[in-house]
Amino acid sequence: MSGFFSEKYKALVPYTPGEQPRDMKYIKLNTNESPFPPSEKAVRAASTAAKKLMLYSDPECTALKEALAARYGIDRDEVLPTNGSDEILNFAFMAFCDDKHPAAFADITYGFYKVFAKLNGIPYTEIPLKDDFTIDTGDYIGINKTVFIANPNAPTAIALNREQIEEIIRSNPENVVVVDEAYVDFGGESCVPLIHKYDNLLVTQTFSKSRSMAGARLGYGIGCRSLINDLNTIKYSTNPYNVNSMTMAAGIGMLEDEEYTASNCRAIQTNRDYISAELRGLGFILTDSKTNFVFAKHPKISGKELYLALRQRGILVRHFETERIAEYNRITIGTFEEMRILRDALADIIGGREEL
Amino acid sequence: MSGFFSEKYKALVPYTPGEQPRDMKYIKLNTNESPFPPSEKAVRAASTAAKKLMLYSDPECTALKEALAARYGIDRDEVLPTNGSDEILNFAFMAFCDDKHPAAFADITYGFYKVFAKLNGIPYTEIPLKDDFTIDTGDYIGINKTVFIANPNAPTAIALNREQIEEIIRSNPENVVVVDEAYVDFGGESCVPLIHKYDNLLVTQTFSKSRSMAGARLGYGIGCRSLINDLNTIKYSTNPYNVNSMTMAAGIGMLEDEEYTASNCRAIQTNRDYISAELRGLGFILTDSKTNFVFAKHPKISGKELYLALRQRGILVRHFETERIAEYNRITIGTFEEMRILRDALADIIGGREEL
Repeated sequence: MSGFFSEKYKALVPYTPGEQPRDMKYIKLNTNESPFPPSEKAVRAASTAAKKLMLYSDPECTALKEALAARYGIDRDEVLPTNGSDEILNFAFMAFCDDKHPAAFADITYGFYKVFAKLNGIPYTEIPLKDDFTIDTGDYIGINKTVFIANPNAPTAIALNREQIEEIIRSNPENVVVVDEAYVDFGGESCVPLIHKYDNLLVTQTFSKSRSMAGARLGYGIGCRSLINDLNTIKYSTNPYNVNSMTMAAGIGMLEDEEYTASNCRAIQTNRDYISAELRGLGFILTDSKTNFVFAKHPKISGKELYLALRQRGILVRHFETERIAEYNRITIGTFEEMRILRDALADIIGGREEL
Repeated sequence: MSGFFSEKYKALVPYTPGEQPRDMKYIKLNTNESPFPPSEKAVRAASTAAKKLMLYSDPECTALKEALAARYGIDRDEVLPTNGSDEILNFAFMAFCDDKHPAAFADITYGFYKVFAKLNGIPYTEIPLKDDFTIDTGDYIGINKTVFIANPNAPTAIALNREQIEEIIRSNPENVVVVDEAYVDFGGESCVPLIHKYDNLLVTQTFSKSRSMAGARLGYGIGCRSLINDLNTIKYSTNPYNVNSMTMAAGIGMLEDEEYTASNCRAIQTNRDYISAELRGLGFILTDSKTNFVFAKHPKISGKELYLALRQRGILVRHFETERIAEYNRITIGTFEEMRILRDALADIIGGREEL
């Protein structure tokens, strides 16, 4: 730290992205990426856009907003594209939280919520998940705070249904409820259809998971016009050209290929069913995943040990040191072949334990 | 504005990007873009990266930092790439300004400094340029504030030399001096060589102007390790994957082609010399430009009228309503052909005036 760093940020503990070791080639099941490449249309569109990079990207993102609006049956003024969904989440913390509107989110959820709250000096409450890692919606009814709910939740993989979320939205008319749907395309129920019913609902989504564009950085928020207006005020005071022109083009290309995305999501669900059954057969305990990852522990081996044993075998999964979930690992669903290799590695590791 | 928008930001007046009208095809001389496309290497690298978009971009930007470090004779820990230079500037306002370290910048300079100060609730002083739009360095000597200097300055196009900036840096050892070198490649003197001499110097640059990559959004800050560390704390608490993988690849591609960039900069300077002489011949008054634009007024026609007359002829330039510069227009240097068309349009407009 330099002697010039503002007091405001000295205590910040930044978010830690998943590791990207370069010592050998790993099967990467640690950052919830898609195992499928972006569609040909997306790649071609990005390559064409690359030739025109000397021109600024459209700060309004008009064409992309129109494509998203058409896809979701909303108006283009009801969506705001951002540099990944981290950016729209940070904008939401900035716009809709302060001393009078503290934030509330689960104790076990996307680790960045806490960082955004601290970054912006916002008071926050972490609401414990139940012992089975489900959310007790009762905790959020009439809570009178700005609520952030990842649905499905990460790293637990568990989803609430739309009625449960709607109850939370309806009971907090004085506060915004942000529903982070990064993983919704793998089996969750989206709250986008509720945005015309509630003026306090912001839904955030991303192209990083189901749409195979993690490297492009493209997220977006969907909400009523006045919420999107507020978020635009933040955007135009922060980074008006926040989405580059190649990413915008790739995003539009992906949206022209929704059947490809849907087919990839079905494949992930199939592979998830396969590995879940195999894991249970090996004695693992799993949550009910509606995402592109599973969250699993085994009575015979600690989470950390399993993580290290897999790493030694060239398989990266995500282990969190947080006490409540230290026995678990978050394992991204990859190709069927990757899931078979994972299955064999786990059988080997667990088998070795059982012989002891 | 929604009823949910935080009081903190209700008074924000966002930055207004240059207009991008779609009613007809314009000669775009209003946003200081390069008239030259990115190099073939950059385009190819971006297209290759597009095929691997399903993987997250490297949050460390290691390869890009190494390329920048090699280019500038610095260490890779002395540079931080960002989503355009707006992002590194915002990070600098966040990290190095607060109530105890208010910001100071010129009254006529990049309009975003004021927005960043307001966004972050930072007190600031606007220091008037002299009547000839030059900076009086004496105003900044020992000012004991966090200084932001665009060098060359925009929209005035005027540069300070390195010794003048160094005096400001040396006289403010308790505060960071941020030198925004967005336009330095067109004739300015960079302060990058000073970063090993002063721990309070942050230089920001961009790929948007000389490197033909405005649409890719790529900026960076260069400073001593401890300053870059602080800025990394902000980055990893805001948007760890702030630079997408296509932009990173394109940036590395451009850096492999520095002779192409240098040749483009020489062409811009040649075209600038040409149009400057022509403008003076038509009776315009110009500042001494070290940038890829000229800043000009004419005694016979107001800045706004000239802007509108050019717009009607299909030529976009940038006019600011700010009182001190309302008589001027900022005109981007384009291709030689574009400069000839501009020259003829101006001769026509001014000629018409003189006949009145």
